[in-house]
Amino acid sequence: MPQPRFKFQLQHTDGGARAGELETPHGKALTPLFMPVATQATVKGLTPEEVKAVGAKIILSNAYHLYLRPGVETVSKMGGLHEFMGWDGPVLTDSGGFQAFSMGPLRKVTDDGIRFRSHIDGSEHHFTPQLATANQEGLGADIAMCFDQCIAYGASEKQVRQAMERTHRWAQACFDAHQESPNGAATGQALFGIVQGGVFSELRDESARVISAMPFHGYAVGGLAVGEDKEQMYRFTGQVAGRLPQDKPRYLMGVGSPEDLVQGVARGIDMFDCALPTRVARNGSLFTPEGRIDITKSRYAEQQGPLDETCDCYTCRNYSAAYLRHLFRAKELLGLRLASIHNLRFVLALMERIRKSIVEDRFDAFRTGFLEVYQPTDEMARQQQKAQWLLTRGG
Amino acid sequence: MPQPRFKFQLQHTDGGARAGELETPHGKALTPLFMPVATQATVKGLTPEEVKAVGAKIILSNAYHLYLRPGVETVSKMGGLHEFMGWDGPVLTDSGGFQAFSMGPLRKVTDDGIRFRSHIDGSEHHFTPQLATANQEGLGADIAMCFDQCIAYGASEKQVRQAMERTHRWAQACFDAHQESPNGAATGQALFGIVQGGVFSELRDESARVISAMPFHGYAVGGLAVGEDKEQMYRFTGQVAGRLPQDKPRYLMGVGSPEDLVQGVARGIDMFDCALPTRVARNGSLFTPEGRIDITKSRYAEQQGPLDETCDCYTCRNYSAAYLRHLFRAKELLGLRLASIHNLRFVLALMERIRKSIVEDRFDAFRTGFLEVYQPTDEMARQQQKAQWLLTRGG
Repeated sequence: MPQPRFKFQLQHTDGGARAGELETPHGKALTPLFMPVATQATVKGLTPEEVKAVGAKIILSNAYHLYLRPGVETVSKMGGLHEFMGWDGPVLTDSGGFQAFSMGPLRKVTDDGIRFRSHIDGSEHHFTPQLATANQEGLGADIAMCFDQCIAYGASEKQVRQAMERTHRWAQACFDAHQESPNGAATGQALFGIVQGGVFSELRDESARVISAMPFHGYAVGGLAVGEDKEQMYRFTGQVAGRLPQDKPRYLMGVGSPEDLVQGVARGIDMFDCALPTRVARNGSLFTPEGRIDITKSRYAEQQGPLDETCDCYTCRNYSAAYLRHLFRAKELLGLRLASIHNLRFVLALMERIRKSIVEDRFDAFRTGFLEVYQPTDEMARQQQKAQWLLTRGG
Repeated sequence: MPQPRFKFQLQHTDGGARAGELETPHGKALTPLFMPVATQATVKGLTPEEVKAVGAKIILSNAYHLYLRPGVETVSKMGGLHEFMGWDGPVLTDSGGFQAFSMGPLRKVTDDGIRFRSHIDGSEHHFTPQLATANQEGLGADIAMCFDQCIAYGASEKQVRQAMERTHRWAQACFDAHQESPNGAATGQALFGIVQGGVFSELRDESARVISAMPFHGYAVGGLAVGEDKEQMYRFTGQVAGRLPQDKPRYLMGVGSPEDLVQGVARGIDMFDCALPTRVARNGSLFTPEGRIDITKSRYAEQQGPLDETCDCYTCRNYSAAYLRHLFRAKELLGLRLASIHNLRFVLALMERIRKSIVEDRFDAFRTGFLEVYQPTDEMARQQQKAQWLLTRGG
């Protein structure tokens, strides 16, 4: 049997928005799509069956975390990440570049790679493009990411340029390693390049040009959603996406909230991942068509209906808002699960509706309608949450 | 349609061991049986479907906890406990007597009832036999328990006698309240009496005689597993069970571990409940036919098979011991779930095997065989765990 290969087919466009299909060694997925985050080989609190049931086709896992614990070799011995965690669909792995970035003073970047101390036991490690690529091969990812240097919002243009140029050299090194390894490109594993360049328009153009000149299977927009405001994030997303090849998938890393997904698709993005839906769920913050609500509020104390009447998820089909509130107030584990299921389903159902509207050439009306009703979380609260999260490296 | 009533049918005996069937307003259950604990209207971490899947027929919930949060009135408005938590099988509720006991210095016992401060907000409350009965009616329990005064191991005979006599008066008060209320006996709700008497043989006899003279639907052995050693616990269980009516179910409260279940059945017990299987599961302590194991140990790091080859639970059918270990070491929520599922299934499958051996008149051989292989947890470690748990009022 021939080894299944990675493919992307662009099926339809509607303005800047795109509908397509990905094919990976572990199955197909329609785009645009959202990937739930399974940092440590588990979408927090959920079984693979539950992740499937909310409509997820691809999940994201973190090579950095799995390298530290339980170790790439252990996962590999256990048959790879799919077998280890019981997920038979496609998996994309992050290279560890972003995690190394978010470690702050615990890391040191050189042209070779990134030297850092483990957040678990303080042990010292050194990630290189070659090691990051080998890690993702050992895990058996369907889609591997290039090792990149992400840089903090607020860095000078000179610093951003230096990190970008390093990212370009590392991209070539990752590409070469992936081509040469018997466990890389040869197995049907895809490798995506990552565009950096911070919030500098010329650097973003340059990075898009350099990275898209290398024949990756797909291209990611990195280094956004790290502290800049939303207008900037949308602007650079659109600028970079417009300079990437039409026939390859485009992935906006670490995004996002429901409004960001809609805005990202409008700017030509095909793939998204973000821990936000499950992270805020565990704090009792739940998505509704009108925006996020706090389920612990007393107004839900005796609400017999589900928290979101329009939702078809397991939680909304089976439990009242009052019960969900009780679980959160009583600090019960089941609350975290039910909330995570709801928020993921909300986001994945949104992606399904987005795709349908693209295929039916009415994405713009859908987008306008959605954004008119959905109230994004207050920008200042959002920035504070993000800063807090970056500090604690939450998964 | 006539209101379904509570019934118990003793079907078979094999030595002291009994096999029977309970019938409640929410369905039937074969005995001997084990009830998972759903303290705050949820078996910690699990959905009702998962609780069903491990083989549970009846669950136990705590009127004390639900009275404090979210409140009996709220649960009642939401349609009762079954509707509120999405469990359509039978529910037994504890009256709150044991919780009041375990609060130590926060409570004061008088002939009227128990005055205590909430462990949540320090607010003052007063439980009486009448209120405890009304609470359980408001929750809609299938089986309610009498309000009793449990007393610490080590109390003097005089103190134990006083608590026992109070328990007898309260049993009568609960019985009367339950008979008179339109929401009690009239609805088909059963009420069980509780035998106290500490570790004093004559008091146990007296309490069994007094309580079984009242026409309850079933009889419980209370005040054991509170610090006495296992030999004492088994001895008093056998003594009390031998003095209870043959034709009514007998319930040993707060027990137990796998070996206790086998020993309890041998002494004529039909019903058990205990938080232990789920509580120790959340610490990574998992039941196997040979005894409890600690899943975080390095010996499981690369074990490809399930933690228990003989187990048919969701966890053992789908995940390796290595993955389970990883989840615990990475402090992932899914680990708590998978471990809880396994331990509950272990205990419920044990009850199924016990019942089968009774029906086939080979319980004694089963018991001997089980106890030869199963290594109970070291007695000193067990006492320490129990003392710790009583201190923190863990659910």
